[in-house]
Amino acid sequence: MKHTLLIHCKDEIGLIHNISNVLLLNKLNIVQNSEFVDNVNKQFFFRSEIKGDLSEKVILSNLKNVLPDNADISLIKERKKRIVVLGTKEHHCLGDLLLRDNYDTMNAEIQCVICNHPDLGELVNKFNIPFHSISAKDLDREVHESLVIEKLESYDFDFIVLAKYMRILTPSFVERYAGRIVNIHHSFLPAFIGANPYRQAFKRGVKIIGATAHFVTNDLDEGPIIKQDVININHTYSAKAMAKAGKDVERTVLSDALDLVFEDRVLINGNKTIIF
Amino acid sequence: MKHTLLIHCKDEIGLIHNISNVLLLNKLNIVQNSEFVDNVNKQFFFRSEIKGDLSEKVILSNLKNVLPDNADISLIKERKKRIVVLGTKEHHCLGDLLLRDNYDTMNAEIQCVICNHPDLGELVNKFNIPFHSISAKDLDREVHESLVIEKLESYDFDFIVLAKYMRILTPSFVERYAGRIVNIHHSFLPAFIGANPYRQAFKRGVKIIGATAHFVTNDLDEGPIIKQDVININHTYSAKAMAKAGKDVERTVLSDALDLVFEDRVLINGNKTIIF
Amino acid sequence: MKHTLLIHCKDEIGLIHNISNVLLLNKLNIVQNSEFVDNVNKQFFFRSEIKGDLSEKVILSNLKNVLPDNADISLIKERKKRIVVLGTKEHHCLGDLLLRDNYDTMNAEIQCVICNHPDLGELVNKFNIPFHSISAKDLDREVHESLVIEKLESYDFDFIVLAKYMRILTPSFVERYAGRIVNIHHSFLPAFIGANPYRQAFKRGVKIIGATAHFVTNDLDEGPIIKQDVININHTYSAKAMAKAGKDVERTVLSDALDLVFEDRVLINGNKTIIF
Amino acid sequence: MKHTLLIHCKDEIGLIHNISNVLLLNKLNIVQNSEFVDNVNKQFFFRSEIKGDLSEKVILSNLKNVLPDNADISLIKERKKRIVVLGTKEHHCLGDLLLRDNYDTMNAEIQCVICNHPDLGELVNKFNIPFHSISAKDLDREVHESLVIEKLESYDFDFIVLAKYMRILTPSFVERYAGRIVNIHHSFLPAFIGANPYRQAFKRGVKIIGATAHFVTNDLDEGPIIKQDVININHTYSAKAMAKAGKDVERTVLSDALDLVFEDRVLINGNKTIIF
Repeated sequence: MKHTLLIHCKDEIGLIHNISNVLLLNKLNIVQNSEFVDNVNKQFFFRSEIKGDLSEKVILSNLKNVLPDNADISLIKERKKRIVVLGTKEHHCLGDLLLRDNYDTMNAEIQCVICNHPDLGELVNKFNIPFHSISAKDLDREVHESLVIEKLESYDFDFIVLAKYMRILTPSFVERYAGRIVNIHHSFLPAFIGANPYRQAFKRGVKIIGATAHFVTNDLDEGPIIKQDVININHTYSAKAMAKAGKDVERTVLSDALDLVFEDRVLINGNKTIIF
Repeated sequence: MKHTLLIHCKDEIGLIHNISNVLLLNKLNIVQNSEFVDNVNKQFFFRSEIKGDLSEKVILSNLKNVLPDNADISLIKERKKRIVVLGTKEHHCLGDLLLRDNYDTMNAEIQCVICNHPDLGELVNKFNIPFHSISAKDLDREVHESLVIEKLESYDFDFIVLAKYMRILTPSFVERYAGRIVNIHHSFLPAFIGANPYRQAFKRGVKIIGATAHFVTNDLDEGPIIKQDVININHTYSAKAMAKAGKDVERTVLSDALDLVFEDRVLINGNKTIIF
Repeated sequence: MKHTLLIHCKDEIGLIHNISNVLLLNKLNIVQNSEFVDNVNKQFFFRSEIKGDLSEKVILSNLKNVLPDNADISLIKERKKRIVVLGTKEHHCLGDLLLRDNYDTMNAEIQCVICNHPDLGELVNKFNIPFHSISAKDLDREVHESLVIEKLESYDFDFIVLAKYMRILTPSFVERYAGRIVNIHHSFLPAFIGANPYRQAFKRGVKIIGATAHFVTNDLDEGPIIKQDVININHTYSAKAMAKAGKDVERTVLSDALDLVFEDRVLINGNKTIIF
Repeated sequence: MKHTLLIHCKDEIGLIHNISNVLLLNKLNIVQNSEFVDNVNKQFFFRSEIKGDLSEKVILSNLKNVLPDNADISLIKERKKRIVVLGTKEHHCLGDLLLRDNYDTMNAEIQCVICNHPDLGELVNKFNIPFHSISAKDLDREVHESLVIEKLESYDFDFIVLAKYMRILTPSFVERYAGRIVNIHHSFLPAFIGANPYRQAFKRGVKIIGATAHFVTNDLDEGPIIKQDVININHTYSAKAMAKAGKDVERTVLSDALDLVFEDRVLINGNKTIIF
């Protein structure tokens, strides 16, 4: 039996020793430890992969006894995450996720795909995944979103993946699923926030374009960044050519970020992430 | 004898043929041609390295006859560019330029180094390059700049290189040397414009930092970009650690950009560059 | 009507002028020219995208008259290439090609997929592409290959793409389709030629792994390289983890190389390529 | 007072707990822990930065009591490393090291520079570092090396840096300074081992070139790799142009590798490194 232990608390002397003592007394084997101290805010972050038979209740209680008050402790049993994918019309990120789901190469299972357009249904259906098209046409943002939530809630899921979902989520949606929504933005944030980043990049004449995967918060494109990557371009690229070239980097950045998230390697520290 | 021919004009049919005809009739050998058509603005850009004995006057006159009105034509005889370097206190870009100058590995010769602080004098003196410290202390921006210009103008130079010159230039300075000032900015523009980009990057929690070499215009950090590059960072980097790690990429980006500029490979197209 | 003109011949003075003269006299519009002179071997390479009504016969005849003897001239009318994909069991490169084919984002159409194992049939069938499983079990290499060729030849195709085809081709196969077979090798050639490159990389303790797309010749993994890319790894990567991480770079490198090939941007120069 | 603790021993349960217990009982503060288990060879590697007053003897003795037999334990007090740089004629890596030494931006101090040619003396002298030219002309390899060793041994040093030292070291030299010699090789190892890697790269037609910093062992270019990086090239690069473009990546890779070594972040695991 394998678990991942995540801890976030105030930094103080002896934490590692106290944690390892609990694991040792419970006869658990540590596969891998990672730790980080945010020296600015005096916060301690810890991740451990542990093997062995355990009572979650006992471990959590033991850890609580030796850690500072208000320590944030998660003991996560190894299992595939359950995800819902939201999309619009672009297929490149979704297609990759469907292939990974089909060949069982990510630590997650797609429960369903929900889009505000019907176009991607044909692709999703090939992979025998439920597809729901919920048009936003003629609907208030709140009304459309309530339909999306209703559908979402009919599934059991851990994370929502925005695979080029071209709509802005309302604050209440974001709060409802805080820390559980991953988005891929087609620029190297904080450059080119908002709409049409490739057109902005073309206009500015940059020599490199990129993509950013991040958790969604209520500040547009301002959530904690998980992963970024770039590719070189030059003056011969039109905005359209940039968009074409950028698709591969978007796909890979999202896929890499999700691997980290689904293996419980990403801790949120305010507006930043810690990647273990 | 080697020349570089640069042409910028309205695009129309037959330009390549007309240009190559002039070169052929003058018995010149083309070492390398490059061309680009800006389809949005219907502009034609051309660069050719040519070998052979020539009369600049004849060639320019012949070309003018076969090119559209107002064509921008430069015929540049091969020689080392003359440059003046402006700095403040940071040595990493300047040190690299001094080494390249000393070992003759760039197509330019440093005429002098002008700084608003005296600190770098010791380094510059090692390489027997004139060093001028012009303090800005207690001076109006215009007054300080007029002293810099006075010193600058006592040298014959083609380009001004801002090697981490931490002062903002006035519009009149920028206009005076339009298209001849190259700056290195320590961020991946347009991200983190202005002061303290590494502190901004730390605060934002980005996973990649970068540097940008660009021509200076009167919009801060908005001039035509010549070269950009990035390096990966992670949550363990403080703003200071980012600044340290960034120095190598700043130095290399500036150096690569200057190689392109000094070999007459960079054409300015509005707010963008074309790199041949 | 759009054509791509490719020329390879002995270098001499006036070639550009002669070629552009032919195009001008035939009232053709040049969209983009590229040229390269191999100064070691005195060879001239040229590519031009041209627009306008033309008689291929006339153009080729006119060009032949003004180019050196034995010039290699191709005038390629714009159309989707036809390709056959060969695979074994790995799905990541094939899956990407199927998605690109399905969404019409590459300049090629997959005619069929031929594998030496049946496993990938389920995936290929989702996309309504003919799938042929030709087992090599208990067969001599030549016999198996003759079955593959028989199947191949039942299709009309321009290129063969080896999308992780794990068998070595015979010299007669390679010669038959010379310059028309593109392979993806899961290492940064010439490092780790041959079998199990990730295991070799793990054993060597490298800090970067990569992938190489190349034309296939009769020297194993020694054909002209079209595209290479790398990713960073570290001591925590097992050979298996490298293989997992490497799949994305394999897929992207193959896809980028094929974009170049299918747009007639790759010229072969002995054991090297010229990419226009 | 700051120390770095490095441990390498057989892996077993409870090591972290035992080590942290020793540090806690000695009232030491852990700034940063890093650990790695080589699961193939069942080896445990550990690095900790610790702060506080300590008796090295007591700590080492305490640790020995709680770690497996034959554990390799180092407790390294914070101080600048002392290094000797060996070179031949190329200045780019040496120049960078001299600048870093001059501006105190690496955790090391250059004791002297020894070259088999006199050319670099002028540069080294600018920085007031002892320079020794020891010609190998007309000398047996062993005789020349004994002169180098004699000079080396007149200095107190921790590491030898081969900054483009173009001579092969004898086995006895390598053994004498085992684990203390860092070399920069101008290729992406294991590609292009040995002489003239850029010429080899040109001949092979690769699309990326690189550099590798590694510890020197008696297998040529086969020692444990510390750092590697690459840059993109294309068909227009001659071998000479590759060499020019490669100099920056050589310099940066060596510099980054040395930063890691001088901060005691590199542990050797057979033919590989672990970078903490």
